Amino acid sequence: MAPSAITASSQHNHEGDQDLDLTTAIEHKIINSGWTLGKPAKPASSLEPLDASQIKVDFTTSPRAVPTPEAANAGPETICTDHMIIAKWTVSEGWSMPHLKPYGPLELMPTASVLHYATECFEGLKCYRGFDGKLRLFRSRRNAERMLMSSLRISLPGFDPCELEKLMIKLLSVDGPRWIPRSRPGTFMYLRPTMIGTQSQLGVMCSREAMLFIICTFMPQLDSPQGGMRLHTSPEDMVRAWVGGFGYAKVGANYGPSLLATNEAREKGYHQILWLYGKDMECTEAGASNFFVVWKNRDTGRTEVVTAPLDNRLILDGVTRASVVELARKRCPEVDVIERKYTIVEVMEAYEEGRLMECFAAGTAVSLLS
Amino acid sequence: MAPSAITASSQHNHEGDQDLDLTTAIEHKIINSGWTLGKPAKPASSLEPLDASQIKVDFTTSPRAVPTPEAANAGPETICTDHMIIAKWTVSEGWSMPHLKPYGPLELMPTASVLHYATECFEGLKCYRGFDGKLRLFRSRRNAERMLMSSLRISLPGFDPCELEKLMIKLLSVDGPRWIPRSRPGTFMYLRPTMIGTQSQLGVMCSREAMLFIICTFMPQLDSPQGGMRLHTSPEDMVRAWVGGFGYAKVGANYGPSLLATNEAREKGYHQILWLYGKDMECTEAGASNFFVVWKNRDTGRTEVVTAPLDNRLILDGVTRASVVELARKRCPEVDVIERKYTIVEVMEAYEEGRLMECFAAGTAVSLLS
Repeated sequence: MAPSAITASSQHNHEGDQDLDLTTAIEHKIINSGWTLGKPAKPASSLEPLDASQIKVDFTTSPRAVPTPEAANAGPETICTDHMIIAKWTVSEGWSMPHLKPYGPLELMPTASVLHYATECFEGLKCYRGFDGKLRLFRSRRNAERMLMSSLRISLPGFDPCELEKLMIKLLSVDGPRWIPRSRPGTFMYLRPTMIGTQSQLGVMCSREAMLFIICTFMPQLDSPQGGMRLHTSPEDMVRAWVGGFGYAKVGANYGPSLLATNEAREKGYHQILWLYGKDMECTEAGASNFFVVWKNRDTGRTEVVTAPLDNRLILDGVTRASVVELARKRCPEVDVIERKYTIVEVMEAYEEGRLMECFAAGTAVSLLS
Repeated sequence: MAPSAITASSQHNHEGDQDLDLTTAIEHKIINSGWTLGKPAKPASSLEPLDASQIKVDFTTSPRAVPTPEAANAGPETICTDHMIIAKWTVSEGWSMPHLKPYGPLELMPTASVLHYATECFEGLKCYRGFDGKLRLFRSRRNAERMLMSSLRISLPGFDPCELEKLMIKLLSVDGPRWIPRSRPGTFMYLRPTMIGTQSQLGVMCSREAMLFIICTFMPQLDSPQGGMRLHTSPEDMVRAWVGGFGYAKVGANYGPSLLATNEAREKGYHQILWLYGKDMECTEAGASNFFVVWKNRDTGRTEVVTAPLDNRLILDGVTRASVVELARKRCPEVDVIERKYTIVEVMEAYEEGRLMECFAAGTAVSLLS
């Protein structure tokens, strides 16, 4: 359960940090799982695989001053570290050599697939500087495997998730020592692996070119707002995801369309939307996070932690969600952890009958109680 | 019904074409409609509106050779004309001066909203060079108004659709004479206005910066394939759009997620997906086009042209769809044109009973009979 410690590279050591190269640190975790979730566009034998060991490295010659997290998060833009990793893919050649290079803008043709057809997916995970001085990623393999699933769902290429994980760690090995320094124990940064379709082609078709990029950014520390988080149920004409859709995949198409309802809720003084589904008004997600209710069972009086199930593929299989479920099952024998459909009517009944104990949202970006 | 003729600008006249500036040619069409479909992020009074008359013009100094449509469409990339128009927007300032400039790549930060959250929408319409030598756009106002609706649905900014239409015509006035020349009567090119969220911010929020760009491209002439177009019904676990979703808006999020099913259908020898909806398996769209069936009514024997309705907001309110409906109602009194829910079971029954006369898809990119 605990994040395993990773240590940072001495290859590009701005501050004389003594951390070691952490690309080797996860070798023991390399197992060939997940990679067969879908087939590549061509027989894999004729295509180059994504291979972290082939990485080409170009360090910045003008490293920026590292802001405090508070200063970094105060502005309207997300602040990234000095470097990013990019790997390009084509349907005929497979993956290019990954390239670690100075952070900067991407050049895309106006006809690029991603700008028109939302051929895009991403992941988000935090890297923590522990009070023991070590850098840790939380269950990064799960994010890498989910990224593969999302990529195939949006008709972008496959890859070995272990290689993606190695690339994430490579970026941290370079930028971690200076941007999440030992002098700031207890702080974190955020990794955002992203894949986009880059073919310059307006036909509605699978993109025959793609780009994977990994960036490392500051991210606000989201604490529960004063008085708890206020959720507004989704309006009747706004459904986030549906059975047969793609609510389970971390693709851009789940996010942009949700902004309108979220903004309207904020204008009314709420923080997020509680997304309901179907005529029974099942609770699915809150904002862009998984959602849990804790109540007393009306018949047995036992405490239940209830969250929406994964089997109808409406919701994201959250890494934090899974961790909450596993932790509660393992450590809290007095509590029943239940993954099932539950409705807003049940939540309201529990509230009215005094059985509702709490609700919370769980996600990487934020883990809030309300 | 007939496209109104537009003539090309003498401002940037590569071939001595005698066409006139067509930004003035549509002044008579300027009415303030559609613009109130949604409210802007701030009171309009304090923000700059999109204003085509403010356009800044920088012509290319190296115009490219104009390929034949056949050569242009043979490659893997969509070929664009020499210029594009860009206008930028911020939540605090509103719209910048539009800029007509040489066609070329866009620079986006890796954190740009559009690359993660699919904050994007577009339009597509054709410009025809008539056999009378005139350039014509087909009902461009409708596309401009739909673009506004799509933009607001995906939480991008509002604008006056008349200004968007003027900008489209401005681009054609510059590139039309050379790229769709009088020497090629009966040919066309394709206009693609696109809006993307450009704020460099990974928080899931409305983008506070956006870019509108308009490009003009070649597009293959899609004729009905030999033996007609073969459609495969959508798999049970693949739903294109749903009631409460955004199937009616031309946003990227409707396209990328549909590619997987389309690709699978193509691998089985079909051309497109016939998207079904709900447990009754209503017919909605075919590929990315509206879909029509023509059958004899079982009871009356009259010919009916049937297509899915707009009221549940599942399908795109297609400009070609509307034109087919209007034309058939006006010109074919012997035919009943009906917009209603109809199911694949009804289509199969009509086929089995010998009542099915034809089916066709209708869209700007393609208008096929099968």
